[in-house]
Amino acid sequence: MINRPVKVKKYGGTSVATVEYIRGVARELVSDHQQGIPQLVVVSAMAKTTDQLLEMALQVTNRPRARELDMLLTTGEQVSIALLAMAVHDLGVNAVALTGAQCGILTDGNFSRARIQNIATDKIHKLLEDGNIVIVAGFQGVTSDQEITTLGRGGSDTTATALAAALKSPVCEIYTDVDGVFTANPRIVSDARLLDFISYEEMLEYAASGSDVLHLRCVEIASKFDIPLEVRSSLNHRPGTTVMREELLEKVAITGVTGDARIARVALIRVKDIPGVAAQISQTLADANIGIQLIIQGIRHDEGNDFSLIISQEDSQHSQEILQRVKSEVGAQEILVDTSVARVSIIGSGVASTPGVAARMFQSLADQNINIQLISSSEVRIACIIQEDQLDRAIQTIHRAFNLSNLERKKLSADV
Amino acid sequence: MINRPVKVKKYGGTSVATVEYIRGVARELVSDHQQGIPQLVVVSAMAKTTDQLLEMALQVTNRPRARELDMLLTTGEQVSIALLAMAVHDLGVNAVALTGAQCGILTDGNFSRARIQNIATDKIHKLLEDGNIVIVAGFQGVTSDQEITTLGRGGSDTTATALAAALKSPVCEIYTDVDGVFTANPRIVSDARLLDFISYEEMLEYAASGSDVLHLRCVEIASKFDIPLEVRSSLNHRPGTTVMREELLEKVAITGVTGDARIARVALIRVKDIPGVAAQISQTLADANIGIQLIIQGIRHDEGNDFSLIISQEDSQHSQEILQRVKSEVGAQEILVDTSVARVSIIGSGVASTPGVAARMFQSLADQNINIQLISSSEVRIACIIQEDQLDRAIQTIHRAFNLSNLERKKLSADV
Repeated sequence: MINRPVKVKKYGGTSVATVEYIRGVARELVSDHQQGIPQLVVVSAMAKTTDQLLEMALQVTNRPRARELDMLLTTGEQVSIALLAMAVHDLGVNAVALTGAQCGILTDGNFSRARIQNIATDKIHKLLEDGNIVIVAGFQGVTSDQEITTLGRGGSDTTATALAAALKSPVCEIYTDVDGVFTANPRIVSDARLLDFISYEEMLEYAASGSDVLHLRCVEIASKFDIPLEVRSSLNHRPGTTVMREELLEKVAITGVTGDARIARVALIRVKDIPGVAAQISQTLADANIGIQLIIQGIRHDEGNDFSLIISQEDSQHSQEILQRVKSEVGAQEILVDTSVARVSIIGSGVASTPGVAARMFQSLADQNINIQLISSSEVRIACIIQEDQLDRAIQTIHRAFNLSNLERKKLSADV
Repeated sequence: MINRPVKVKKYGGTSVATVEYIRGVARELVSDHQQGIPQLVVVSAMAKTTDQLLEMALQVTNRPRARELDMLLTTGEQVSIALLAMAVHDLGVNAVALTGAQCGILTDGNFSRARIQNIATDKIHKLLEDGNIVIVAGFQGVTSDQEITTLGRGGSDTTATALAAALKSPVCEIYTDVDGVFTANPRIVSDARLLDFISYEEMLEYAASGSDVLHLRCVEIASKFDIPLEVRSSLNHRPGTTVMREELLEKVAITGVTGDARIARVALIRVKDIPGVAAQISQTLADANIGIQLIIQGIRHDEGNDFSLIISQEDSQHSQEILQRVKSEVGAQEILVDTSVARVSIIGSGVASTPGVAARMFQSLADQNINIQLISSSEVRIACIIQEDQLDRAIQTIHRAFNLSNLERKKLSADV
């Protein structure tokens, strides 16, 4: 086993989009290598590759099976790791590219959304000991039956974090095409501020609220194994955002506001017989692998109860079909699907404990005549369902209301 | 184990060049499936894919390492098997795509030119029994250490033939972009005739003489395990050429003429000390993985002996570098490399036994003022080294001299 701390880095698709970029990443790796730092590098597919492969699949069939789709998509990462290894070799340094299977990333058999079960690190340790930069294909794994699986959207982040955990790395650097985590999407809020630090819990809420910066599962693993994640741009040397333990960070009321337009609201109108209905609907959707982001049960009327579900927009058609089948069973008069909704959320460790936070959010929306359809809240988040075409305005007004462009957050201790 | 004979088919890159072609191949497979025929299908990368991948590699580095190059190139076949399986699914039939590793194609560790050592057929038998069309990535294998390897040029033919041997298939159908094996390249000789039958031995000579139709190793395996190969076009339903056992075929003097311009002649001038020199040169080149196609030792003079080697053109620069190093050791005065040479060969089971064959070949070349630099012959072949710019004319004149456009060859027995 290698006895020096291993630096784990992950480069996203935009960071390896061209041969030139790949050569640039190789130079960065070699520079760290020359300082004697052992490195394990996780790489995504070159930008657009996955989309192109998916498009080919859809030209062949409307409904590609998940097993063959995973087999197809994983070639993208196999190409980028091979090329990156070659680029490192070209600079005179040893590097070994490993596919998910070769790296021993064992997953369950749920194609297109597999979960990592185990990582065998012997081979990695051996290769690092021998002075190699180890380059691993992100997003992919293998079952004990040698089936090729993928980890779902943002899966390369998950690969990197899981490897950092398995190698007990002090940090996992996530290189991407943004500078880090902002108080709001800079394309919507021009004076959005880059956060230096954010807690795992807050980052989880960002991921669950539609932020693309980090994948939910990746943050879960980082949190569980206490691996700080450094999210930063591969285009500059700025420090980016460090995702770390809450206790080490100064508490702030809210760290940001985020929006998600890729949701749909499913309403079951006038459900007669309430007991057990929520469970039945949840189970029905779960059986079809459709995740429910939110269930809201309205106030009980004599004529029955209205039920609202928030799901991902891509699941909306499928869930409507499924729910139509159980409509009479659950005694609903009607099932409506509305895809013109969006969710705006504020996130921060002080959301629940700081008085007036919720009120200030709601007031800022009211000031703009934005109607709140549904509200949900957790320890570190308040989310409002609003009309989709009002989303950008909602984000902007909330960002102003909390004066987020002047937000400063500090680390309390220096042990990272 | 499946107890019905399994049909093994191989589709080359041009047969799966586009999504439309892939869907066409799927229809062919489903048609045989509906007749209850168990099928194992080996597929190459979609045409041009391998070249595009190779080009990317060369943009990254002038000298890609073979291990990572194999990892890169094998993605091409992984894409085509996934898409073909999806296309079969789309027609309502079960199919399972398998990479070389998943299929258990175990090779040695010689990247870029690995040899198949063993094929585990349990999984294939199980899948066929369950009614699946099994679709296997050609050209690739895996070592016992899980390293991804490729079988070299034309490797998919080798994969198909090795699988046919492992499954004891009665026949292996090789679908390609030509109608079969011709008496000469139809692009050079307009009235070249398609051969209905040809023996393994003759086909081996064609492969060794620069014909691209079938890979040498594939014919070796077919011959060893007595698997008839049906070479045919995927664009029509013509029967093509069957490569089979010599004893079952009528003997003909020659079956065709073939040319190869991708050769180079290396001359070692005035080698002093003959004993052991041939061995030393062969060993030196073998150590560098350079295959010698032919060694010709000139007549001994007092001042020393001239030595000529015929090698592949792509090895010529490398071999010159290597031989310069041993020049003084072997006592050569000079080492010359000439890449403007080509080889024209006639092939047939009667080449050695039919009087006058060699004379007729040499005379037809002399009639055209084509100078023969070197001659080599075997049981079923006579090869002449000539100037490269005279190659097409040489092929045409020999084809005429043997009246090959009227060649008829029959099968003696009906057991294929």
